[in-house]
Amino acid sequence: MEHLAWGAAVLGAGGGGDPYLARTLVLKELAAGGDVRLVGLHELADEAVVVPTAMMGAPTILSEKVPSGEGALRALRTLERELGAKVSATMPIEAGGVNALIPMLVAAQAGIPVVDADGMGRAFPGLHMDTFHIYGVKGAPMALANEQSHSCVVNAADNLALERLARSLTVAMGGTAFIAAYPMTGRQAKETAIPSTLSLGIRLGEALRSARARKQPPAIAVTEVTAQSIYGRAIVVFEGKVTEVQRQRTEGFLKGRAVIARQDDSSDGQLVVEFQNENMVARVGEQVVATVPDIITLLDYEAGSPINTESLKYGYRVTCLAIPTPEIMRTRAALDVWGPRSFGYDLNYVPLEALHSRVYA
Amino acid sequence: MEHLAWGAAVLGAGGGGDPYLARTLVLKELAAGGDVRLVGLHELADEAVVVPTAMMGAPTILSEKVPSGEGALRALRTLERELGAKVSATMPIEAGGVNALIPMLVAAQAGIPVVDADGMGRAFPGLHMDTFHIYGVKGAPMALANEQSHSCVVNAADNLALERLARSLTVAMGGTAFIAAYPMTGRQAKETAIPSTLSLGIRLGEALRSARARKQPPAIAVTEVTAQSIYGRAIVVFEGKVTEVQRQRTEGFLKGRAVIARQDDSSDGQLVVEFQNENMVARVGEQVVATVPDIITLLDYEAGSPINTESLKYGYRVTCLAIPTPEIMRTRAALDVWGPRSFGYDLNYVPLEALHSRVYA
Repeated sequence: MEHLAWGAAVLGAGGGGDPYLARTLVLKELAAGGDVRLVGLHELADEAVVVPTAMMGAPTILSEKVPSGEGALRALRTLERELGAKVSATMPIEAGGVNALIPMLVAAQAGIPVVDADGMGRAFPGLHMDTFHIYGVKGAPMALANEQSHSCVVNAADNLALERLARSLTVAMGGTAFIAAYPMTGRQAKETAIPSTLSLGIRLGEALRSARARKQPPAIAVTEVTAQSIYGRAIVVFEGKVTEVQRQRTEGFLKGRAVIARQDDSSDGQLVVEFQNENMVARVGEQVVATVPDIITLLDYEAGSPINTESLKYGYRVTCLAIPTPEIMRTRAALDVWGPRSFGYDLNYVPLEALHSRVYA
Repeated sequence: MEHLAWGAAVLGAGGGGDPYLARTLVLKELAAGGDVRLVGLHELADEAVVVPTAMMGAPTILSEKVPSGEGALRALRTLERELGAKVSATMPIEAGGVNALIPMLVAAQAGIPVVDADGMGRAFPGLHMDTFHIYGVKGAPMALANEQSHSCVVNAADNLALERLARSLTVAMGGTAFIAAYPMTGRQAKETAIPSTLSLGIRLGEALRSARARKQPPAIAVTEVTAQSIYGRAIVVFEGKVTEVQRQRTEGFLKGRAVIARQDDSSDGQLVVEFQNENMVARVGEQVVATVPDIITLLDYEAGSPINTESLKYGYRVTCLAIPTPEIMRTRAALDVWGPRSFGYDLNYVPLEALHSRVYA
């Protein structure tokens, strides 16, 4: 869990909420006798009933108040009633941030396994921004529940409407809700999910924490782990000191930019990272050095701990890492949903490996 | 249906949406072979499953766009699935405005009777402003559905939270939704509903239309019908010409005031009617002449047709009627929910009969 909390923060790309709080919830559940088993996609029966679970709400709220976790199981049970079927396994919708850990909580409570896969391969701000939606799984029926004892079922005509209805219900429910959505068969999970993202998160966290203990550079740890995954090898796109952070909160989104300057005045420009909950585009001068959906993550230069967009501050010394995402996240259909243009940037997506062809040669 | 549309507009107290559109929907359903049977509360078996139905949304939207009516039955069916029970009968939540007729539509579609009773005895702006809530019926589970094929089930911890969640879902669903809520037994309906309000609406409409045909004053028609009901005898509190209308739309509410002056310059002051969707308080000078929950309704002076707060215009000649509400709507518990103070007026409720003791003597 400690490893996963670190690794999920790396895959969070600056967003997705702080996984450390979710970790606390899971550890409490495990201490009470709960148990979590991770299963691979290939272990799922084709006819298994797989229900992804997550928390919905503004990342800031997730960081500020620790929910009791009681609603997590209730969301699952509410959806089971609606489906008229027992759920065989749960799975993250989002492998980055808080939501990498919520399925662990649900699994420990319900006594079901967690599938080592997810629908985003990182963190994204919208419920419909996942490979389940992109590759044809219906999000509805969806259940929402929270510790105020509210529980709701939403059946929307399409996944975008579902996102809209669920988002406004979540706000009315007090800002956060546990959700169970995108019920699918084992076969659909195998066809649409991004495989092995939880174990990747665990390995990333383990490598980073071990590097910290041995006082080794964190970047090397991430590079080694990602090189042996369906993601591409991570690279360091910049190192320096945060000289400016602008943040603006609009409609549950935290938008802004961070400026990072070299410490040695070598004057090869500054890094500017633009974020919308997650880090979206990184530029050095006019040159784009990484864009969504590839993962842009800032690590504390020495400790190697991931720093999210909420807690980034002037003066921090950081390493900016970028991780190439797997092919399933880079198809035309996927880029239509989460390419730079879908977040309002006048940029075509260029894969990280092409932006840094000399490094990857 | 024609009678009820007129009568429901009287009981709408200026709000509740225009019943004429809802009438069109019901007539279409009846023309297609549907059938509606009105049953009295006493005809219900104690263990009958009674589910009130209505439309939720801003009155203006209800007036501007005619829904297909397809969602009405779907809301009922969604709640039946959630309850795991067939519904024996439906009932209005609100006898005033659009919502007096929606249960007719549902009943014709589902082949079930409509109970001649409701939870408001008039129109009110909030879902929790009803005798079901006041006398202890739980609003949840509640179903919402509309013609965009969305359908949702909401289980909230209490009726106020239910109102809040359903209201925001309705907005997200496009502004209006058909709802099925406050599922109750026949016994609970008998204990909490206001009896015979639909038949009162029909008799009011019939009397007004007959008076119009015979060119008789509309006020007398309303007076005679109400005198023979559990409501008190209606009185005319003012007659005159509209000299000013102020309206302000805030958060789905239409707030404002209308000023009505005598036509003969007899100078016994002006009538000022303050409204919040419904007409709430009527004053002549400093003197309060009628307040919520008693019904304040404006009729066209000659045609006798009820005029709602949406369509009231400068120059209209109107008769302002007030109708005393039955005792079940005037208890301490009821006034806590819909007395003048709950709408922000610094006024204690004084029954209409006390405000006009000489007229009622």
